[in-house]
Amino acid sequence: MKLKNEIKEIRNNEYGIDNIFLNRWSPRAMSGEKLPKNELMALFEAAKWAPSASNNQPWRFVYAQRDTEQWEKLFNSLNEGNREWCEKAGALVVILSRSNMEYKNKPNPTASFDTGSAWISLALEGAKRGLVVHGMAGFDYTKAASTVNAGKIFKVEAMCAIGKRAPKNSLPENLQKKEMPSKRKKLSEIAFEGKLPK
Amino acid sequence: MKLKNEIKEIRNNEYGIDNIFLNRWSPRAMSGEKLPKNELMALFEAAKWAPSASNNQPWRFVYAQRDTEQWEKLFNSLNEGNREWCEKAGALVVILSRSNMEYKNKPNPTASFDTGSAWISLALEGAKRGLVVHGMAGFDYTKAASTVNAGKIFKVEAMCAIGKRAPKNSLPENLQKKEMPSKRKKLSEIAFEGKLPK
Repeated sequence: MKLKNEIKEIRNNEYGIDNIFLNRWSPRAMSGEKLPKNELMALFEAAKWAPSASNNQPWRFVYAQRDTEQWEKLFNSLNEGNREWCEKAGALVVILSRSNMEYKNKPNPTASFDTGSAWISLALEGAKRGLVVHGMAGFDYTKAASTVNAGKIFKVEAMCAIGKRAPKNSLPENLQKKEMPSKRKKLSEIAFEGKLPK
Repeated sequence: MKLKNEIKEIRNNEYGIDNIFLNRWSPRAMSGEKLPKNELMALFEAAKWAPSASNNQPWRFVYAQRDTEQWEKLFNSLNEGNREWCEKAGALVVILSRSNMEYKNKPNPTASFDTGSAWISLALEGAKRGLVVHGMAGFDYTKAASTVNAGKIFKVEAMCAIGKRAPKNSLPENLQKKEMPSKRKKLSEIAFEGKLPK
């Protein structure tokens, strides 16, 4: 996979990793079109192959296509800042984890961590397909949980907006400035030999 | 990327996703060789591009190359079952998350979830390079945390073993039977339209 032009000037591939990781970012400009169901299913299929403790697969995804009753409710659970650009999303997805083990009635301590690995698989596959997949923590967790019937066992971890990409200038002006791939810490700030620094 | 032969008979690509997701699994047979530092750094580089709330990047990785003092300590924190095959690992890695926000003194509710997305990026890049990258929750979390100086701010999420692959028959007999890619739930058990089922 080639490094995309929009990435080249901002992100650098130091050790020759697969460009799938650098090409994924979180645009906001979407076209307002619906997504074909096959396209959505492909993203969930990527998610399902994630690893998890004892292969427990605690991740669940609840999606709502735009122009449906559930979409309206999930949209209304978003913070104002996210509503501004999510109105052009094709689908909204609530990402949940099962907080107990499926076959034993005990807590699953890695449920959130494992679900994070499923979530990014979805996002990587989406980016590869040229879609916007933008994760969000800025929403009313209680409202979203109640909308999707999370109950007591399932914990809402995050939401994401998925949609077809649109030109940057279709965004409100304040968001156009933010429409670019983000940078990261240096490797030396996240990977350490032997011990964390004091 | 082609679907590997060892995967073909066990995993099926229904919606045409990138084979990087299907090709990743968690072998146990490793050669006992050390890993070149460049190879390890590449895995951490893949991890660093993961998304996180407010680009907070809560993930940290502490690694120990085999035949070092820290490797011995981390190895001894593993459950007996994991010690059986990890003795041939090239490196052991402790995966941690920063439980508060870096620039604000408040808890980071997505720290574990975000760190899961960094972890699988590391694992996907490793699998693509033909390495074993095998995640573990079976170890003494308190011992591992103290070994790497986690302190109060960093939470140990998981560990992983990384190494060069070796033939299945190099494993103890009881583990040879388990040396194959695992299956997953059906998509209809993890992705739902509108609501979770009752």
